Amino acid sequence: MSNRLAGLLAALLPLATFATPASEPRTSARIASPDARITVEVTTDNEGRASYAVSRDGRAVIAPSRLGLMFTDTRKFERNLAIVGQATQTHDERWEQPWGERRQMRDHHNELRVTLAETAGPKRRFDVVFRVFDDGVGFRYDVPKQPGLDRLSIAEELTEFDIADAATAWWIPAFEWNREEYIYHRTPVEEVGLAQTPITLRTGDGLHLSIHEAALVDYSGMNLTRAEGRRFKAALTPGIGAAKVEVAAPFATPWRTIQISERAGGLVESSLILSLNAPDALGDVSWVRPMKYVGIWWEMHLDRKTWASGPKHGATTAHAIRHIDFAAANGIGGVLVEGWNVGWDGDWFGNGETFSFTRPYPDFDIEAVTRHAREKGVTLIGHHETSGHAAHYEAQLDDAMALYGRLGVQAVKTGYVADAGQAKVRGDDGALRYAWHEGQAMVRHHQRVVEAAAQHRISVNPHEPVKDTGLRRTYPNLVTREGARGMEYNAWGQPGNPPEHEATLVYTRLLAGPMDFTPGIFGMDTRSGAPMATTLAKQLALYVVIYSPLQMAADLLDHYEARPEAFQFVRDVPVDWEETRALDGAVGEFAVIARRQRGGDDWYLGAVTDDTPRNVEVALDFLEPGRRYTAQIYRDGPGAGWQADPHALVIEAREIGASSVLTVAMAPGGGQAIRFVAH
Amino acid sequence: MSNRLAGLLAALLPLATFATPASEPRTSARIASPDARITVEVTTDNEGRASYAVSRDGRAVIAPSRLGLMFTDTRKFERNLAIVGQATQTHDERWEQPWGERRQMRDHHNELRVTLAETAGPKRRFDVVFRVFDDGVGFRYDVPKQPGLDRLSIAEELTEFDIADAATAWWIPAFEWNREEYIYHRTPVEEVGLAQTPITLRTGDGLHLSIHEAALVDYSGMNLTRAEGRRFKAALTPGIGAAKVEVAAPFATPWRTIQISERAGGLVESSLILSLNAPDALGDVSWVRPMKYVGIWWEMHLDRKTWASGPKHGATTAHAIRHIDFAAANGIGGVLVEGWNVGWDGDWFGNGETFSFTRPYPDFDIEAVTRHAREKGVTLIGHHETSGHAAHYEAQLDDAMALYGRLGVQAVKTGYVADAGQAKVRGDDGALRYAWHEGQAMVRHHQRVVEAAAQHRISVNPHEPVKDTGLRRTYPNLVTREGARGMEYNAWGQPGNPPEHEATLVYTRLLAGPMDFTPGIFGMDTRSGAPMATTLAKQLALYVVIYSPLQMAADLLDHYEARPEAFQFVRDVPVDWEETRALDGAVGEFAVIARRQRGGDDWYLGAVTDDTPRNVEVALDFLEPGRRYTAQIYRDGPGAGWQADPHALVIEAREIGASSVLTVAMAPGGGQAIRFVAH
Repeated sequence: MSNRLAGLLAALLPLATFATPASEPRTSARIASPDARITVEVTTDNEGRASYAVSRDGRAVIAPSRLGLMFTDTRKFERNLAIVGQATQTHDERWEQPWGERRQMRDHHNELRVTLAETAGPKRRFDVVFRVFDDGVGFRYDVPKQPGLDRLSIAEELTEFDIADAATAWWIPAFEWNREEYIYHRTPVEEVGLAQTPITLRTGDGLHLSIHEAALVDYSGMNLTRAEGRRFKAALTPGIGAAKVEVAAPFATPWRTIQISERAGGLVESSLILSLNAPDALGDVSWVRPMKYVGIWWEMHLDRKTWASGPKHGATTAHAIRHIDFAAANGIGGVLVEGWNVGWDGDWFGNGETFSFTRPYPDFDIEAVTRHAREKGVTLIGHHETSGHAAHYEAQLDDAMALYGRLGVQAVKTGYVADAGQAKVRGDDGALRYAWHEGQAMVRHHQRVVEAAAQHRISVNPHEPVKDTGLRRTYPNLVTREGARGMEYNAWGQPGNPPEHEATLVYTRLLAGPMDFTPGIFGMDTRSGAPMATTLAKQLALYVVIYSPLQMAADLLDHYEARPEAFQFVRDVPVDWEETRALDGAVGEFAVIARRQRGGDDWYLGAVTDDTPRNVEVALDFLEPGRRYTAQIYRDGPGAGWQADPHALVIEAREIGASSVLTVAMAPGGGQAIRFVAH
Repeated sequence: MSNRLAGLLAALLPLATFATPASEPRTSARIASPDARITVEVTTDNEGRASYAVSRDGRAVIAPSRLGLMFTDTRKFERNLAIVGQATQTHDERWEQPWGERRQMRDHHNELRVTLAETAGPKRRFDVVFRVFDDGVGFRYDVPKQPGLDRLSIAEELTEFDIADAATAWWIPAFEWNREEYIYHRTPVEEVGLAQTPITLRTGDGLHLSIHEAALVDYSGMNLTRAEGRRFKAALTPGIGAAKVEVAAPFATPWRTIQISERAGGLVESSLILSLNAPDALGDVSWVRPMKYVGIWWEMHLDRKTWASGPKHGATTAHAIRHIDFAAANGIGGVLVEGWNVGWDGDWFGNGETFSFTRPYPDFDIEAVTRHAREKGVTLIGHHETSGHAAHYEAQLDDAMALYGRLGVQAVKTGYVADAGQAKVRGDDGALRYAWHEGQAMVRHHQRVVEAAAQHRISVNPHEPVKDTGLRRTYPNLVTREGARGMEYNAWGQPGNPPEHEATLVYTRLLAGPMDFTPGIFGMDTRSGAPMATTLAKQLALYVVIYSPLQMAADLLDHYEARPEAFQFVRDVPVDWEETRALDGAVGEFAVIARRQRGGDDWYLGAVTDDTPRNVEVALDFLEPGRRYTAQIYRDGPGAGWQADPHALVIEAREIGASSVLTVAMAPGGGQAIRFVAH
């Protein structure tokens, strides 16, 4: 299916296809990237074990690393394999995102399909398909239907990643009690433990790698166990049965991805993961509307309001209307209301069966609120907290989405707040099973939610989600998600997010896709009274640095009204982009990102730093040559710093052009936001 | 059940028992070792998560580490826990091993039983029982029967081990394609990957720790995943169903053990693991007979004979009789014959269904061979290679053991040569399942084999086994096992075992229990022609250094006949001991071990070194004061060394006493063996 919203330019150019019907088994096969710098080689050893290796400019990036699949009920695919066929093709396709961090995409890769067959025993066969781009590699297993292999019960994927060179790694742990909300570790690769993906590595030579996956559909999420040295093994998230994954043949696994770039920003600019996802499956998605939103939310994190009913209940009719009016007055499209539905009054944690997704609290007149919103051209952002009880949610899913659809709610934030491994789904026997948030059962659940939402033209923003693997290409209403430590950790106080957190996210979690980080905190209040590791300028910069088509202005409205000059940037900044450049940066240190407004000429720049103040020289050669722009600069003011004075902000204007060089100055924990208004 | 063979002295002395029926929940409980140096504290945090911590002399050894269990079908035991009861008792029991590395054992510990109950939700309760010895800690979960908890489907054990101090670790990886046969890694603890137990650690202060488990019965083996930093998580071996372990309540897990010693040798001398196992369950075990054995085996590894039938078939009647006669002439009790039974001729690897356990090859007259053996006072060591097909073996198990029983075979070596995760068992539905060698299904299988063997008074020596956790106390016919890289790796050649291998095994794998390492290679032939990392003196020393009640003289008989002087030590050395001392050593560097013959006055000493030549001063104060001994010394001769001259051996005698100090000199890769003949 093509991208019907874009409706143009999807130029599919299979330049060449040639298969080698190997008359006798080979022990190696090879493919290179279009620019010939990255090479993948697949080999079999004298016991018939298959491995792949990746090199760049002739130098090893991934040392020979094992391939295979292990099953619960039949012999593994791993030994006695011979390469009995290989086919290559070149693919160069331009496609368009209906919304996104850039409009024009190019999927340019060379593909190698290696057919491995057992030389002994059951003589089964399977393919491994490699796609080699100029900025990395994707590969997956593709298992055809064959006698005795109608269904496959995958016990483990035997894929390995043996990092050739010493490297620094940025990573978060897997299979802990929390799901994905960790401060990133920065360690030598040899000290990585059990890690989630994406994991980002920088070798001693300065080469940047990110290992992740693309198109996680009807499978379990992949984590990485460091086996020894620099060798990682895939560790699939457990399923709810004996197998980690149950599939019917033929089937293909998600793509295992290795992004490779000399620049940290090259990882940010890569479209490899999206290109490995299937095209739009929804048809017309013109109803998917990127927008900013405010909400009844930050107050709860500051303990000034409650989700539960009672005197501090946040989700009242009046409070919602106040937010709607504010949004309408400031060009903000949405209003999130959490705590509107019954279920919050008891111990809901781990007890998601308490939630109704259709019954509002009595002090929240959902009909009146949504009527008022429609009149103001604003949408409610719906909220479905499940506490991980996916089965309970699914039982109400159609009714819940139908209600929102009828009320004109255009997006819903779903939530799965429960300890890792404590989501609840139903097995084939109808009995409840405890599940991991990223196991196959929950992957299926999220897909059901996205499809049910699409029926009512609703976009979905899951929190405590399955990690992003680029499915927004296939399901454009899956607009954003959480899946990392967001801003609320700063409200809760010690330890809040460290000053380098955002400059780490850019090169780690955000490589997977958009994140509903909820920036825009002006008040800097925290429960503990401890300072947040940010300045006001950094909060503005995050609207450019962190891409999300649903982007919150997360603070209390009073705080925005108190600082209208700073808030002007939030009013101005778009959420949908024509193009994106990662101009400068270093993982976990700083990031400078520029984006051009979708359908407009203005550019925006966001820069954030860690605890180190910086002056970064930025050449503005991304601007249109010969054109003049007014740079509206929001920068850390004299004496600014997250500990010193987070609110010291200077707003100034300069006339510049593409030949200008700006010095972007940032205070400790600070940042800078710029709008380049085209003349 | 008491140890009826020993029949004496089992003095059970519960000195004190006192329970604290806590009227209100507590947040901590504490217990100390009998010498008060080791302390365990259990605490709950403000979310009701329970953890334990271990300190020694007031200094943290294990930092607070999580406790809990996760299930597939009900909420985990982990949050909302309160300590609602605690009971302590002191236990001082002397017990005797029917055979072993020492006769007299003392189980002296203080026990703390902490009852944890949920303060919310289902209000379930479970106990964690700690036993604190002067040389370490054991703890396990003990789950009573309670409403709604008839059966428990354990998804994972949430036990953690957070090593308090920086340390060096010796470890082998878990869940690789091989099972347990790895060269040990020596890394900082922060670089450990996914590890098997026992894992040995030495802190910067020189404190030695070994983490392992005791009494692995009807459960899955525990491995350790390093999550981050120095924090390890239990990683149970997968089961064959959705759960890693299926049990009926009430049940107790195996003991998780942390041995602690200032000396490396203190780990070797510890009886903590055996003391945590249940007493003898078999009754009269006087039929369990420690012995040395020769066999038709090393020839196959050198590719001079075959397991399969044909012109090079090793297991012929004549060849077996030659071995029996040799054994009888040299006081050796057993003769192993591998390849005697049909099934070896095709591709048996992973195809264990080809094996018959009752049908000999035509050129092996099992009746004649065993008749001849009985006449000579020698037993055949039976051999059952399953290639991991436990289900196929079980179908023949009774017949197979009955045959051996009728023929007077006193011991059987079982084998499970298959890739890890490729053992085969039957599920409840009768269908074949692929299983890990250390999962619950295989743990149950091995117990069935041991029980079936006991019916016929046969001892069992499993290769590719479940790791040893001290079950020999409960099942004294489970005499030894493999479960590490044995001598055969030296026959195969590069890479053979490195020179430090045995000095590592002493402080790692061998802490778990006896190992059928198969020492005694005189010929030093290898397939590759590369030298073995050993000297002849080291081969002799291994008979003392490596404890095994079935101890092979593994080389070709011709090689023994060619070196009768050296072979005299093999003839002399016992396999059953009155006492054992680890006199000196350092993990992975060297080991000096002395043992006194069971029921005799002679002592034996074995010393091995790594690639470094050493002179170790050994005080002989373990000898009986005032008594004279002739030390029959087998030492590396002038110019000896594994690369230089492995056969340079000096045999000499010295008169010494308890006040003597010997300098034990060892060449690179060498060793020394001494018999102290008491006058």
